[in-house]
Amino acid sequence: MSVLVVGSVAFDSVKTPFGQVEEVLGGSGTYFSTSASFFTDVKMVAVVGEDFPAEHLDFLRSRKIDLEGLKTAQGRTFRWKGSYDYDLNEAHTLETHLNVFESFQPDLPQGYREAEYVFLANIDPELQLEVLNQVKNPKLVACDTMNFWIGGKREALLKTLRHVDILLINEGETRQLAEEPNLVKAARLILDMGPKTLVVKRGEYGVIMFSEHSIFSAPAYPLESVFDPTGAGDTFAGGFMGYLVATRNLSESNMRQAIVFGSAMASFVVEDFSLGRMKKLEYGEIEERFRKFKLLTEFDGLE
Amino acid sequence: MSVLVVGSVAFDSVKTPFGQVEEVLGGSGTYFSTSASFFTDVKMVAVVGEDFPAEHLDFLRSRKIDLEGLKTAQGRTFRWKGSYDYDLNEAHTLETHLNVFESFQPDLPQGYREAEYVFLANIDPELQLEVLNQVKNPKLVACDTMNFWIGGKREALLKTLRHVDILLINEGETRQLAEEPNLVKAARLILDMGPKTLVVKRGEYGVIMFSEHSIFSAPAYPLESVFDPTGAGDTFAGGFMGYLVATRNLSESNMRQAIVFGSAMASFVVEDFSLGRMKKLEYGEIEERFRKFKLLTEFDGLE
Repeated sequence: MSVLVVGSVAFDSVKTPFGQVEEVLGGSGTYFSTSASFFTDVKMVAVVGEDFPAEHLDFLRSRKIDLEGLKTAQGRTFRWKGSYDYDLNEAHTLETHLNVFESFQPDLPQGYREAEYVFLANIDPELQLEVLNQVKNPKLVACDTMNFWIGGKREALLKTLRHVDILLINEGETRQLAEEPNLVKAARLILDMGPKTLVVKRGEYGVIMFSEHSIFSAPAYPLESVFDPTGAGDTFAGGFMGYLVATRNLSESNMRQAIVFGSAMASFVVEDFSLGRMKKLEYGEIEERFRKFKLLTEFDGLE
Repeated sequence: MSVLVVGSVAFDSVKTPFGQVEEVLGGSGTYFSTSASFFTDVKMVAVVGEDFPAEHLDFLRSRKIDLEGLKTAQGRTFRWKGSYDYDLNEAHTLETHLNVFESFQPDLPQGYREAEYVFLANIDPELQLEVLNQVKNPKLVACDTMNFWIGGKREALLKTLRHVDILLINEGETRQLAEEPNLVKAARLILDMGPKTLVVKRGEYGVIMFSEHSIFSAPAYPLESVFDPTGAGDTFAGGFMGYLVATRNLSESNMRQAIVFGSAMASFVVEDFSLGRMKKLEYGEIEERFRKFKLLTEFDGLE
């Protein structure tokens, strides 16, 4: 079993109160794939420039990520520069250079077109739909987006959402997409747009998952040292989808476990810049953190 | 069994995006007592002015709140005026008139001095200590405070905290008191100041409880209509303490249940202005909401 992801591979320059890094490996596709690879096989659709070093390709391959769908195009790799203040909840984008992403036309390798599980990371909703149209018979489609597309390409986004089973966005995006300040009402409006499940990412406050008959709330893991929140959302999505694909079980109880595995993955990635923590992570640590989430949240019911 | 509370009884004027009210019953002591009264007996220490109507006294008595410690002083009752924006997480104080509270010298009735359970609501830390000094042999002391005292009466507050078992404050206050932006580190610093347990109130994001060997995180109940968040923190504290007193059990698992009962109470009070919702609330509804918290948060552990 494998998950197909389309997203960005990028060089990030990031400054947080705890340090800064220049042109390190980043991008939504990279974070998602790396995280999902702890649970299942990954096929990646993305584009890099000629300046992308073999070292990063080697790392992705070492995670057994299938790179047949990763195109190298003439020009420079996508670059993002951002900073965070002490609260770490909001990224301040300083620079975005799409570079090779500007003219990216995804063309899926034959072997990718049979994919059953698809994650459309945060890219232009028209590209998301183009990728989806090339997948013959997807079983489960999950999707991310952002304020930029909700505001600027609303029609295209709504069209994509009609084919999406699970939407993963943050709180502000939820309110913006639904045009409704109350989160519960907003969630209900979004569940009428296509997705059967809405996963709202709340940073250090965790995650809340809405579906027609159920709401599930999970905290973030309380950490003493958060170095860099970049990629936390995509890493969450990678753990969430990776676990769903590995278990091939979309029951409510398994979806809840997937939320916790996603939260566990996100709690690791923020402990270092870039993919630093993921490069050292072992599966046993993930299960150990899952168990700590259980201890963090459990209480006795009434008799 | 009963809980002794010292706090304010006030007239509130509140404006939210959903409406506004003038000079309605409010105050930390009122909200706490009303909430706790669903679980245990309450003895209230507070002061009102000659303008305080019999109707409000009748309501408090109908909740079986002991008012022997409620003094009527010459002058006007404490008044607070505030407003909330759409996010509802932060109150904007427009006016505060301490009135009779300005010269309040709590003098506990004899029957109050034997109290085993004490809640010091958010008032001047010197007054909190004065009340505490009149209680002969308290078993459990819980306490609230706010940025105003943390900044302005730090020494007095630290002195009070040395006698406090459980401190209940919000996130900003936690960081301010500990002078540390990371919540987990801040909690550890505060647990060195006296309290054995720190309960951090996070509004719509719920509650996180820190003690020496454990962290417990509980969400807020996702509500479709929040009319007025005034009193949510004190109502939470009332449910939390009320349940602890009623069960006389300070084990970790019982403290966790108490957090959920407190959260349930808070989720009711915000559904209407002032004590409107509490006046109609029945105990069965509280248990039903407790069960919904269980459904909201539970997930299967690993085998």
